[in-house]
Amino acid sequence: HNASFTQVAQDLTPLTVVVLGASGDLAKKKTYPALFGLYLRNLLPKNTIIYGYARSHMELNDFKKRISSYLKGDESKKQEFLSMCFYHSGKYDEKASYDQFSEILKKSEEKWNSTSVNRLFYMAIPPSIFLEVSKGIHDSLILKSGGWSRIVVEKPFGKDLDSSRHLVTSLKKLFMEKDLFRIDHYLGKEMVQNLMVLRFANSVFEPLWNKQHISSITITFKENIGTEGRGGYFDEFGIIRDVMQNHLMQVLSLVAMEPPVSMSADDITNEKVRLLRCIQPVRLDETVFGQYLGNDKIPGYLDDEGVPKDSITPTYAAAVFWVNNPRWRGMPFILKCGKALDERKTEVRIQFKAPENFLFKDQDITRNELVMRIQPGEAVYLKLLTKKPGLENTIEQTELDLSYKNRFENLDLPDAYERLILDSIKGDHNLFVRDDELDIAWQIFTPLLEQMEKRHLKPEPYEFGSRGPKSADELSKRFGFQRSTGYKWPGTSK
Amino acid sequence: HNASFTQVAQDLTPLTVVVLGASGDLAKKKTYPALFGLYLRNLLPKNTIIYGYARSHMELNDFKKRISSYLKGDESKKQEFLSMCFYHSGKYDEKASYDQFSEILKKSEEKWNSTSVNRLFYMAIPPSIFLEVSKGIHDSLILKSGGWSRIVVEKPFGKDLDSSRHLVTSLKKLFMEKDLFRIDHYLGKEMVQNLMVLRFANSVFEPLWNKQHISSITITFKENIGTEGRGGYFDEFGIIRDVMQNHLMQVLSLVAMEPPVSMSADDITNEKVRLLRCIQPVRLDETVFGQYLGNDKIPGYLDDEGVPKDSITPTYAAAVFWVNNPRWRGMPFILKCGKALDERKTEVRIQFKAPENFLFKDQDITRNELVMRIQPGEAVYLKLLTKKPGLENTIEQTELDLSYKNRFENLDLPDAYERLILDSIKGDHNLFVRDDELDIAWQIFTPLLEQMEKRHLKPEPYEFGSRGPKSADELSKRFGFQRSTGYKWPGTSK
Amino acid sequence: HNASFTQVAQDLTPLTVVVLGASGDLAKKKTYPALFGLYLRNLLPKNTIIYGYARSHMELNDFKKRISSYLKGDESKKQEFLSMCFYHSGKYDEKASYDQFSEILKKSEEKWNSTSVNRLFYMAIPPSIFLEVSKGIHDSLILKSGGWSRIVVEKPFGKDLDSSRHLVTSLKKLFMEKDLFRIDHYLGKEMVQNLMVLRFANSVFEPLWNKQHISSITITFKENIGTEGRGGYFDEFGIIRDVMQNHLMQVLSLVAMEPPVSMSADDITNEKVRLLRCIQPVRLDETVFGQYLGNDKIPGYLDDEGVPKDSITPTYAAAVFWVNNPRWRGMPFILKCGKALDERKTEVRIQFKAPENFLFKDQDITRNELVMRIQPGEAVYLKLLTKKPGLENTIEQTELDLSYKNRFENLDLPDAYERLILDSIKGDHNLFVRDDELDIAWQIFTPLLEQMEKRHLKPEPYEFGSRGPKSADELSKRFGFQRSTGYKWPGTSK
Amino acid sequence: HNASFTQVAQDLTPLTVVVLGASGDLAKKKTYPALFGLYLRNLLPKNTIIYGYARSHMELNDFKKRISSYLKGDESKKQEFLSMCFYHSGKYDEKASYDQFSEILKKSEEKWNSTSVNRLFYMAIPPSIFLEVSKGIHDSLILKSGGWSRIVVEKPFGKDLDSSRHLVTSLKKLFMEKDLFRIDHYLGKEMVQNLMVLRFANSVFEPLWNKQHISSITITFKENIGTEGRGGYFDEFGIIRDVMQNHLMQVLSLVAMEPPVSMSADDITNEKVRLLRCIQPVRLDETVFGQYLGNDKIPGYLDDEGVPKDSITPTYAAAVFWVNNPRWRGMPFILKCGKALDERKTEVRIQFKAPENFLFKDQDITRNELVMRIQPGEAVYLKLLTKKPGLENTIEQTELDLSYKNRFENLDLPDAYERLILDSIKGDHNLFVRDDELDIAWQIFTPLLEQMEKRHLKPEPYEFGSRGPKSADELSKRFGFQRSTGYKWPGTSK
Repeated sequence: HNASFTQVAQDLTPLTVVVLGASGDLAKKKTYPALFGLYLRNLLPKNTIIYGYARSHMELNDFKKRISSYLKGDESKKQEFLSMCFYHSGKYDEKASYDQFSEILKKSEEKWNSTSVNRLFYMAIPPSIFLEVSKGIHDSLILKSGGWSRIVVEKPFGKDLDSSRHLVTSLKKLFMEKDLFRIDHYLGKEMVQNLMVLRFANSVFEPLWNKQHISSITITFKENIGTEGRGGYFDEFGIIRDVMQNHLMQVLSLVAMEPPVSMSADDITNEKVRLLRCIQPVRLDETVFGQYLGNDKIPGYLDDEGVPKDSITPTYAAAVFWVNNPRWRGMPFILKCGKALDERKTEVRIQFKAPENFLFKDQDITRNELVMRIQPGEAVYLKLLTKKPGLENTIEQTELDLSYKNRFENLDLPDAYERLILDSIKGDHNLFVRDDELDIAWQIFTPLLEQMEKRHLKPEPYEFGSRGPKSADELSKRFGFQRSTGYKWPGTSK
Repeated sequence: HNASFTQVAQDLTPLTVVVLGASGDLAKKKTYPALFGLYLRNLLPKNTIIYGYARSHMELNDFKKRISSYLKGDESKKQEFLSMCFYHSGKYDEKASYDQFSEILKKSEEKWNSTSVNRLFYMAIPPSIFLEVSKGIHDSLILKSGGWSRIVVEKPFGKDLDSSRHLVTSLKKLFMEKDLFRIDHYLGKEMVQNLMVLRFANSVFEPLWNKQHISSITITFKENIGTEGRGGYFDEFGIIRDVMQNHLMQVLSLVAMEPPVSMSADDITNEKVRLLRCIQPVRLDETVFGQYLGNDKIPGYLDDEGVPKDSITPTYAAAVFWVNNPRWRGMPFILKCGKALDERKTEVRIQFKAPENFLFKDQDITRNELVMRIQPGEAVYLKLLTKKPGLENTIEQTELDLSYKNRFENLDLPDAYERLILDSIKGDHNLFVRDDELDIAWQIFTPLLEQMEKRHLKPEPYEFGSRGPKSADELSKRFGFQRSTGYKWPGTSK
Repeated sequence: HNASFTQVAQDLTPLTVVVLGASGDLAKKKTYPALFGLYLRNLLPKNTIIYGYARSHMELNDFKKRISSYLKGDESKKQEFLSMCFYHSGKYDEKASYDQFSEILKKSEEKWNSTSVNRLFYMAIPPSIFLEVSKGIHDSLILKSGGWSRIVVEKPFGKDLDSSRHLVTSLKKLFMEKDLFRIDHYLGKEMVQNLMVLRFANSVFEPLWNKQHISSITITFKENIGTEGRGGYFDEFGIIRDVMQNHLMQVLSLVAMEPPVSMSADDITNEKVRLLRCIQPVRLDETVFGQYLGNDKIPGYLDDEGVPKDSITPTYAAAVFWVNNPRWRGMPFILKCGKALDERKTEVRIQFKAPENFLFKDQDITRNELVMRIQPGEAVYLKLLTKKPGLENTIEQTELDLSYKNRFENLDLPDAYERLILDSIKGDHNLFVRDDELDIAWQIFTPLLEQMEKRHLKPEPYEFGSRGPKSADELSKRFGFQRSTGYKWPGTSK
Repeated sequence: HNASFTQVAQDLTPLTVVVLGASGDLAKKKTYPALFGLYLRNLLPKNTIIYGYARSHMELNDFKKRISSYLKGDESKKQEFLSMCFYHSGKYDEKASYDQFSEILKKSEEKWNSTSVNRLFYMAIPPSIFLEVSKGIHDSLILKSGGWSRIVVEKPFGKDLDSSRHLVTSLKKLFMEKDLFRIDHYLGKEMVQNLMVLRFANSVFEPLWNKQHISSITITFKENIGTEGRGGYFDEFGIIRDVMQNHLMQVLSLVAMEPPVSMSADDITNEKVRLLRCIQPVRLDETVFGQYLGNDKIPGYLDDEGVPKDSITPTYAAAVFWVNNPRWRGMPFILKCGKALDERKTEVRIQFKAPENFLFKDQDITRNELVMRIQPGEAVYLKLLTKKPGLENTIEQTELDLSYKNRFENLDLPDAYERLILDSIKGDHNLFVRDDELDIAWQIFTPLLEQMEKRHLKPEPYEFGSRGPKSADELSKRFGFQRSTGYKWPGTSK
């Protein structure tokens, strides 16, 4: 499996990558940098070209200038990479445009003189034109023979259960599930992938990994910036659709699922679906919503361009999830996400119960916690209690720590997108979202979203740069989470 | 409990410490430095004098010079401390000597003009004169009223079950168990005390702490020096009596015992005794003995002064112990100790079983280990497997780490003897060996020792500075221990 | 759910049952008696007719005589039932025959004057004509509208993985999975259904239900008669295909699977498939085969009509199965089945491990067993040890017992076929075999079957009326089963 | 161990049994019948005489007539037994009486012409003269050499912690603990002894035997008669001292204690003491008291002769106990005992939690219970849920049953006293109460008893023949016990 890994570049069939929406922000900030990253690591097939496609008319050089602004690395390598990049302008809703583009691709590929060629279509486009572009690809661009054609799509995958099902059904008519790669870029993050290894390659965690020993599991996503001009897009979705329903539910699935029958993509997704099926729809009375305020220096959410002045779109959400299976029944999963908070971090925090033996009754016994820091500063640490060194018999909070920065020399972690594009080239579905997974995730959130909209519920305001709405801490407390105030993980400041 | 801790010095009744055998090595190297340490920490009663007693005639100044050689710290403090020290020469086997000494003590104590005075007798004497000194103390020196008299004794507590019982019975006639403080200085070590906190103040360890999850527990004591001239004394006892039967069995007891009913000394010792009662006598065929060889540069054991040329006394021993209770039945405890080895360290190594799910069959899955490093470089670390950072899907051995040196600023760990003497002054029996504990520990070893001596078994030779006899590694392997060769704990070199 | 149960007869749409192969043995002995049973319990729709279809020309009266021989019950009820029965003779391989039959059915159904009518096709035919009959049904007999058409099929479902897949694929082109009801009549047995209730409605079994507490699980199927003239048919299949691969694997699945997400048919089958996916193919060296011998009075297998004199078809098999999941890894499932043995019984025997505490070392401690007796004499009992009543301190084997005969007054257990036909009418797939289940079950057995045939392995002979081949008891012993010889369950003789 | 059992009679040293208080009720109803039982079973030493001692002057024949009224069995055996019985009248508070009696015993024993003779003193006397009789025995009757002298004593062992300690200390000065046999006759009951076997010789109970799986444990003692003239004696003690503090706490200890290190008396008692040390004193607000009323036909408690008309002595008590150890923390033990109730029975009822998987949500799922019926009608049964036999998918309450009467032919259970006297002759302390056990049991009850008396609390009245005070059922409910009303154990009526 790994032996072949570094040979990808030499062995692979020639590849055409088509970036739909190449003139957009996502393409510039994520898609091209990730492709460049793979190029630097020598992980693209030797014969690769990357064709941008979008509506805007642009000179190739202007296009290259545009995308090169986010490429980081050696200049000569950059030039090599850019020489593989091309651009074609066409309409999204016109078969003729796609047919014309098809001819260009064919000519380009003929030069390789290869019996087979593969095509990867990367959809860096807004949801509104999603289906028409898909149809264009299906009718004019996918290969009928001689190699694969794969479609990489990005969220949002609908806005609720109905729209998601409509999307899934429509795409099913055009492409087979095996050729679809739905990206949730959180699945490409180092620590998210490490979750599976931590849980299943070690024997010390599994016996603890259940409601008998765990008091609560909190998954937190915090950004310390606001919408910063992207509020117009954001306002349509809100934080639940943007972060909680996809990224955090994916993390929850990996944290909570049963050991799969094997490490194959299907077996893993089977377990995720089985887990999600045990989750009850979120209840409004176990949820907290917030919207951040501005101050003298920083604009609030409602001040952001494109956000309606009376918007009730939440920029913060906290909610409790219950997994009704033998492992988790009755133990709360608390998911929290928000913008404009006091810090930037994503982490999983497993808080264990107090020890059973109650031997240190007279001392301040805080609870053990296993924390997996996803970003920034990848780390795993286990908060525990040790005797305070010295002659006193007091107990102190310390931790067993694994901070990547300290442990690994010359740590070079690839961006999540790099891994995901690589996996789509390798045909490995492990880190992509399957259709049934999507469906069940929407089932969990749709009743809540509908209620919120029907009742026109107003989010609780919170200060920019704060911990979020007060009610969120109270929610955690209500479900048994004990916040230890005195302790600070030394890794925080390192 | 801790509030009172720093007030010991002010509150306590005046104290006379009597060091029997004050002119010897133990007194110089351990007893006086520990008393000085307590003085520096302001933990001796304000009114304290320390009277040395021994056979040698010595001027007080010579005596002070002798003991001051091992005192470390501020010179003026040293002088203050030495001003509390006195010396009296007397016979060990003559009542008149003790009576005379009694008068001296009385006069000295009268100066305090206190209604009560306490006396602590510290026996820094060889076992041969143990009982006669005890009798001397009993007949002439213990206080009949107005304060306590406590006796601190050091191992060896006999050479086998019979001699130990004789000693216990003889002492019982002279002193009450509550006034006897049998030192096993390993109980005073920071990490040994931390064992109780780790196990019982945290909730994450108890569920793992059993044969279902643990594959083996190894307790290792390694010295990188030989007997260095003390071989004459050592040869009488050998490594089993010197280290394994006491220090390592104490560590094993604390690692393996059930949670006590409370943290009181009696409840803890009850559990230790209950645990030891479940241990079968060691079997010869589950034991390895070694004796170190010399080379051009370093003398071997048999070259040491005072060691008979045909001595079969082991300087290395490894043995397997079985605890027949529900928690441990069938799981081996492997104890190893030796001199003249490749490094100096004492540690407890808990090796867990392989994970149950076998999901990473194609990879090299090493086992989790929880290591408690007792000395040097106090640390706790948990070896675990994580995803190798980066695009590869390989698994790597890392660890969650708590190295005291890195974690605690200005770490100042008191010597084990400081704590033990302090506890004897406070009357806390927690870290001392109870009579029934001693008895059962001897029951475990005596059959083996008798067999060895009857059969005149020769130990396996090993190189000075090596890992010990080859058979010892084989013994571990035979009982399921998997040594991971590629991995080195980063703390080792820090 | 149960309220509606007794109203089935009144509420249901008119029903035409078509029994294909109506002149055969299965129809006579199983299908018609089961339909009659349902009629007696008032569980067939008020408007029901039952049409027999087969090649043989027969007068309706002769047909009725034939099928009535196995109907048991009140004579007037029998006559009522027979008045619902009709017969039509036609070819199996000729479209014209089916078309003609279609017209007859239509006319018959028109009399009901109902907007909708359902049709249930029961295939009581040999595997050789399976596909042609299916095609006939599909092309001419299934309803295009106005009600459902369901197909009930009986094993054998192929002879190995390839033939099974061929069958599944061929049927898939004709019928939808939801309309197919593959019967494994063991799933209809009272105690097999009780398995789910025992495991999941009680809380005392789940904590014990794993390799940590169980030593082995044996599933035994014993017949005390030989092939008795049916040897010709049997010889093509042998005991593994006839009993072990289907009936016993179904029982194993229900005993070993994880708790399903819900009690829906799909969720339960999902768990069965997930379980079967964890089972390694059976190994030849963990298998025992036997073939029974005759004696003066009773013919042996090779004496049976239609059995080739050099047949190596096994009439007995024992094999060990390993389920590689966290619950069962390393614990053997021992499956045994055979004809011409010492008794008739089918049972699941869960043998627990010895107690951990070893407190009664000097006594003969046999192991706890939980036995579920499927037939005859439905019972559950738990073998345990109690103090022998009286002044002696000895221990005795007794049991906690639930024998249906003793516990339930007027016990009237329906035949398995009754329940299965009822469920197919109700559209409940719970007790039927899904396509993927079938596939994975064949994967487990096919390598073994191929090896046996390639190597032309001879089964071990055993006496008619014995416990089977000697090696079978040795196999059990080799995998840790302890047979307790002194004890006899009192229920045996009751 | 058991081989020797039947040889007791032949092997043993001659024995003199002295029954102090021989003219009283206890002697007549319990002591002599038990001795006769042992005689019938051939378990008394061949050379045995039984000397009654009491204040009353009585002819030997009258005495024999008196005691023979409760002896059951063959008349000739009865005569043989009576020929071993003698009577001596003496004072309890006069040394001369004992000395005189001593002479008689000596003469009697001389006839055996044996080098050694044993004496068993059975104290069938009221507590008021306990110490003076003990002193008499110590000063005049115990043997200085040539055999053992053992003292069998009956409760009450004091009325509270102080009086119990006074008694223990006083007896300690006279006899050694090893020679004292404190009877709690509940320890001699068949099912109480079976408790140890059930728990520790079987492997299926231990994994369930903890708070994780058990919801509550109820120990019930019910009598269907009132004090019936013994109210005078009873009123001094009340039901808590008479039944709960001793009999029920003994049963609780055996049900709840950890597995002992061995089956020796000391190891078992060690565990009982360790368990009792984890029990908090009973709280008044977790207790219910009752006193029974009379009606037209039956006198109430206050009507009983000797009972003060304003007595507040409870004849019924229910209380909740908490065992603060890892196995039981947070799970209630509910103890209930009373007179004049609806039935006579003593049983332990272990109610398990509901199953974790919640798969049968729509059905009435009652909880599993393991019931150990101590008296009458010894039985063990496990209430469980099974599928209701037949076509319906409903669930029904049934049970796995072991009723002694049904299972064992010719069941002949010895009285508890027989076993206890036999064990005191054999010197086996297993079924007797150790001094520290007594002490800790009193510590649990004394605060409650003091509160009740200080506050002069009135018990809740209840009808003669009812289930007891209403509050008692509410207490059970408050602590999670679910009473299943529809179900009745078939054994009840058998």
